[in-house]
Amino acid sequence: MDARSVFDQAVVLDPLDEGRWRAHIDPGWNIGDAPNGGYLVSLAVAALARTLPHPDPFAVTAHFPSRTGSGADALIESRMVRAGRSLSMGTAVISQGGSARVHVTGTFGALQQLKGPTNVAGGPPANAPPEQCVRAVGGVGPAPEFVNRFDLRMTPESAMWAVGKPLGRADMQGWVRFVDGRDADPASLCLFADSFPPAVFNIAPARWVPTIELTVHVRGRPAPGWLQARFLTRYLINGYLEEDGELWDSSGALVALSRQLARMQG
Amino acid sequence: MDARSVFDQAVVLDPLDEGRWRAHIDPGWNIGDAPNGGYLVSLAVAALARTLPHPDPFAVTAHFPSRTGSGADALIESRMVRAGRSLSMGTAVISQGGSARVHVTGTFGALQQLKGPTNVAGGPPANAPPEQCVRAVGGVGPAPEFVNRFDLRMTPESAMWAVGKPLGRADMQGWVRFVDGRDADPASLCLFADSFPPAVFNIAPARWVPTIELTVHVRGRPAPGWLQARFLTRYLINGYLEEDGELWDSSGALVALSRQLARMQG
Repeated sequence: MDARSVFDQAVVLDPLDEGRWRAHIDPGWNIGDAPNGGYLVSLAVAALARTLPHPDPFAVTAHFPSRTGSGADALIESRMVRAGRSLSMGTAVISQGGSARVHVTGTFGALQQLKGPTNVAGGPPANAPPEQCVRAVGGVGPAPEFVNRFDLRMTPESAMWAVGKPLGRADMQGWVRFVDGRDADPASLCLFADSFPPAVFNIAPARWVPTIELTVHVRGRPAPGWLQARFLTRYLINGYLEEDGELWDSSGALVALSRQLARMQG
Repeated sequence: MDARSVFDQAVVLDPLDEGRWRAHIDPGWNIGDAPNGGYLVSLAVAALARTLPHPDPFAVTAHFPSRTGSGADALIESRMVRAGRSLSMGTAVISQGGSARVHVTGTFGALQQLKGPTNVAGGPPANAPPEQCVRAVGGVGPAPEFVNRFDLRMTPESAMWAVGKPLGRADMQGWVRFVDGRDADPASLCLFADSFPPAVFNIAPARWVPTIELTVHVRGRPAPGWLQARFLTRYLINGYLEEDGELWDSSGALVALSRQLARMQG
């Protein structure tokens, strides 16, 4: 039995040569036939963490030029662009068969060394506690395979789409943690930022909402325990939409902001 | 006399060889000694437009590994990563002296070919018209050089910082267009998304707020005339902040969303 968490078992980089790794794209993180975008970003972040001198992702951007095949190997190539005193920057590209599948750019720093003013407008959502929320697995019909890697709970309002009664606003909120109790860390926040059903499900049914671009800003080191999440889409225009996310830790601190551009495919 | 607009005069790429251009970093777009980030992104977007088969930037991400020198030449290298039917993706790197200064990733498409559902929550800000707003040049003390390239007007509330009475919330709204009447287009929206004073000026004085990462999503082709802009910072944490921007055209349509991660330097 493997004592590592489900996440750490799925994010394994086999070194090839300088800046190059082979990784297996674990089908346990699929949505339908395709790997979850946040999982792929986690693989790229792991490569960047081995390439850059700073420990924590501050801003990670992924563009998804083509679909990654699941259950197969991929090549990850990571390159440092520049290292400064407080920040460093690099790129990591996931490819299969010579074609780029995910192109990630990351600026890393050290969260624990930050000093400077703090002024926070607003706080975590005042939602029902996890035990009063709706389980994504076993609560409301079938869930994509990757959802089994989490204990993910939607607020009752957010889960309305799942019982065929969309809320009427593109709002998705709730609680999330790894199913095996592994705590979130700065690197895994990129995954949590892409872990909930698309908020747009609460205004319109969609078969598939592929991400075109995802950026995550890690703003703090998460305290152990539940993350609270809030995802919102305000502008669905000609089938394209942004989804803005916030992740709050169990101490009530904002730990990540995310935004993605995605396309609704009915 | 050069009949081209101030913007088109400053975004000129001299071809070197396949995928490589020389550009002059025009000091007319400086903030202090450094070029405005949106101006640099515009140079990279111009290179991507010559490299990718689709006409419009959909998602453009810039990381800024080091400061670009102004009044000097730079090398821009652009590369197509993948072209699909409806979207294509590439990178453009601006460098000087062999060092990367700006690293841009872009996914392009064709705005006029989009079909799909639209559902917009909210609309443009209900602000005072431009003639009742405060001119950034000549209205409230000295402005950075690049502001002279715009007719930029802040709402009276947003301009409070400029008279030493910060509003108390990190909110910056107003109107903007090019000073010479050139209309905005999809490519120049990346510049407009970085044209206003930092919203954080309305909560705390800062000497300098350098951008670490900027992503712009172009959501529509702007109608001629004024753009209305709204920039908001909610989370200033240990000196780091996000700034979220919206740009609306004169027909009341949302044409771009932006977010940047920046650092306050007191």
